[in-house]
Amino acid sequence: MATAPSVSYSMTVRLEVPAGGSAVSQLTTVVESSGGSVTGLDVTASGHERLRIDVTIAATSTAHADEIVGKLRGIEGVTLGKVSDRTFLMHLGGKIEMSSKHPIRNRDDLSMVYTPGVARVCMQIAENPEDARRLTIKRNSVAVVTDGSAVLGLGNIGPQAALPVMEGKAALFKRFAGIDAWPICLDTQNSDMIVETVKAIAPGFAGINLEDISAPRCFEIEARLREALDIPVFHDDQHGTAIVVLASLHNALRVVGKRIEDVRVVMSGAGAAGTAILRLLLSAGVKHAVVADIHGVVHAGREDLVSAEVDSPLRWIATNTNPEGVTGTLKDAVADSDVFIGVSAPNVLGAADVATMAEGAIVFALANPDPEVDPAEARRTATVVATGRSDFPNQINNVLVFPGVFRGLLDAQSRTVDDEMMLAAARALADVVHEDELNANYIIPSVFNEKVAGAVAGAVRDAAKPPRSTEPGSLGEPTELTD
Amino acid sequence: MATAPSVSYSMTVRLEVPAGGSAVSQLTTVVESSGGSVTGLDVTASGHERLRIDVTIAATSTAHADEIVGKLRGIEGVTLGKVSDRTFLMHLGGKIEMSSKHPIRNRDDLSMVYTPGVARVCMQIAENPEDARRLTIKRNSVAVVTDGSAVLGLGNIGPQAALPVMEGKAALFKRFAGIDAWPICLDTQNSDMIVETVKAIAPGFAGINLEDISAPRCFEIEARLREALDIPVFHDDQHGTAIVVLASLHNALRVVGKRIEDVRVVMSGAGAAGTAILRLLLSAGVKHAVVADIHGVVHAGREDLVSAEVDSPLRWIATNTNPEGVTGTLKDAVADSDVFIGVSAPNVLGAADVATMAEGAIVFALANPDPEVDPAEARRTATVVATGRSDFPNQINNVLVFPGVFRGLLDAQSRTVDDEMMLAAARALADVVHEDELNANYIIPSVFNEKVAGAVAGAVRDAAKPPRSTEPGSLGEPTELTD
Repeated sequence: MATAPSVSYSMTVRLEVPAGGSAVSQLTTVVESSGGSVTGLDVTASGHERLRIDVTIAATSTAHADEIVGKLRGIEGVTLGKVSDRTFLMHLGGKIEMSSKHPIRNRDDLSMVYTPGVARVCMQIAENPEDARRLTIKRNSVAVVTDGSAVLGLGNIGPQAALPVMEGKAALFKRFAGIDAWPICLDTQNSDMIVETVKAIAPGFAGINLEDISAPRCFEIEARLREALDIPVFHDDQHGTAIVVLASLHNALRVVGKRIEDVRVVMSGAGAAGTAILRLLLSAGVKHAVVADIHGVVHAGREDLVSAEVDSPLRWIATNTNPEGVTGTLKDAVADSDVFIGVSAPNVLGAADVATMAEGAIVFALANPDPEVDPAEARRTATVVATGRSDFPNQINNVLVFPGVFRGLLDAQSRTVDDEMMLAAARALADVVHEDELNANYIIPSVFNEKVAGAVAGAVRDAAKPPRSTEPGSLGEPTELTD
Repeated sequence: MATAPSVSYSMTVRLEVPAGGSAVSQLTTVVESSGGSVTGLDVTASGHERLRIDVTIAATSTAHADEIVGKLRGIEGVTLGKVSDRTFLMHLGGKIEMSSKHPIRNRDDLSMVYTPGVARVCMQIAENPEDARRLTIKRNSVAVVTDGSAVLGLGNIGPQAALPVMEGKAALFKRFAGIDAWPICLDTQNSDMIVETVKAIAPGFAGINLEDISAPRCFEIEARLREALDIPVFHDDQHGTAIVVLASLHNALRVVGKRIEDVRVVMSGAGAAGTAILRLLLSAGVKHAVVADIHGVVHAGREDLVSAEVDSPLRWIATNTNPEGVTGTLKDAVADSDVFIGVSAPNVLGAADVATMAEGAIVFALANPDPEVDPAEARRTATVVATGRSDFPNQINNVLVFPGVFRGLLDAQSRTVDDEMMLAAARALADVVHEDELNANYIIPSVFNEKVAGAVAGAVRDAAKPPRSTEPGSLGEPTELTD
């Protein structure tokens, strides 16, 4: 799995080089012979003797970037100046901001946006609480809530270190669905305290997106919040992943010509994502599912499960999967299966294991950045292979789901999010790929496909059955002061 | 105190009138003879027989607006269409939004703003927590927190009905100081729960602005949060008001040629604002202060205070004011005093009471919308009169203070806000009015005076003594990847 130079390891290097001679041409040669690529070369100052050049380089890792800079420094006559990291530059001061929708130019503006005019709007909401969704930001606001306990693949890095991810998430909510999201990074990892805090801040939001909260706490936190709140609570790591996996599976099954009721599905990973995927697959009609975790296949007789609490997530899996009573290792289970879904760890399978799967095998190896099996090797025998990576075909990416799901929930003013809405979202996402576009290397659209968010939103909105007639996405009619 | 027609009671009325005849000219006549004013008249459609006209009208109240609409309907040949309220129109869908600072156009943008690039930024913060202020929104973000228990003069209307005020506040933070504020409206009025919730959400913010929380709970909540958090906590109803009052007093004293140490100050109101004003005045050097509440002058021997808890706010006032042991009513205390400051209720004083004050009297009557004494009547004998209203000279308005104070606190990366910073803010605000501008009708600048926020911010920043050298307001140097 060689990695290509990436803009996410991109930097701009300021150099001074002799104006004559071969130094300039050597710059590109050195970068490329080191495995990097030059994505920009700007002469920013020029004299008779010397040139100042800003070279922008993509590398494969931080260490690789350091190595390239070292080689540039070694070129005869070159002086190295400042090295700027493009990703860090984009993060300076944060990635999102708050904006006012109306200019406040003069006393008149002030008296409508703030006191005294605002008082009448407050009284209107006090008398008709439902008007909060019409006259405030609530209608379009989502809290992106984390405790920083399970951030990306980085682990428990805490709330402040999680903030760049939450800002990015908020930016994506706006970019793909016009939603105003604000990060709420919690200084507690106590489940009770998280539940109480989110309940307390809920009035100003129309939805809660839980993010990067570790399992098994995330299950309890989400369940308690769904019970307590009158706005939808969605844990993207669980439900967003589950929806995009199901959508991908719908289309992969179309490619191989199998029915969801018939296939044998083997999953690796019983964490937050794995459990949520499993639940949604069962809702979608999967009859034959087997789950393996680090201790092997989950079944009711497994030693650690006999003593587990009755309501533990693993016990739930044991009760609701593996009807044939399969035991043993993941590799044992994979033999003759139709679908493998990995949300676990790198390289738990080899090409030889994939080769034991049934004809028309489907492999979703979603561990990031290194999948459960090398996708290129899996592809030798499997018919459809998908990963979480952007540098292989069929990227299974939550960005395809969460913006549209929340857009639909907000437009419907939904108080909940349920399986029916998630199944509808998955179906709508799958259907964005038309019959004549569908093939083994295109089971899921690009995140930049402009139809995605609208299709998902529409399906969720319809499934959520709006409580009252309202034009979706519109701001409603102007207020009537008198008849 | 006749009220002028205001844009905060402004509406647009759609009418159809006969094309010929006098109906059109009657529209303006009817509005003006009813005490309203026409601020716009647009013909939006025209035919041989009929005109469609949108008339925009300012009234003095909702009832007045209704009355005017009724009279328009009565004009011969006029058909009334939709009536739109400008203030409500500005609130549809909320007044603020979240924006991304960077476009997300393609895969490269996505990989820097979100995964995988963001992971390196997260790790940087995990390893160097101080970098959260450099690489995230924390550096410029303020939470505007309310429980909706004391909103404007409207009382305990709850968190959702308070949201329009908090949105307006956020809009003002941006307009006047470039700060990103987000409303947090709490679904609890339990002090412990408020404290715990604000502590929990603090990591993503560099400051907390408490807003419209009722006394005496606001004192305890603020004190406990200041103790617990490493970011400044500012209760605008208390401290913002105190700063702008002190600034106004500085300049009023310049006008009448008295020293703050010498004047006798009488205050009406011992709530959140009154207590905070008093504390700041004492810090600023006031030696002779007397406070009256609804039960009369506060003194240690007053019946209700003998039995009060030792740490009650009123006991604190009794201990720290009234060295001469004045007793009786507010009106008794006002006689011969130099300064009256009202933050209480309408019409607690008459012109005759103001006439008993010392030569060169200063009257700040800040109850809203109806002041403690009619400012026009007070002006007959008092030298300087100020109110909270925008339709009299000398408006004492918190908008002059909170944006600049927080700008200074954020630029200094301050962990606290203390009396020294607040005194500096008041002095800087007073000094925006130059010696040759100062007079009895201009003791405080307009909220749209462009020097205000910068002057206040600079003073607070200097008083907060930045912990490390940083260019104020700048985003710092680009990150160095290597030397």
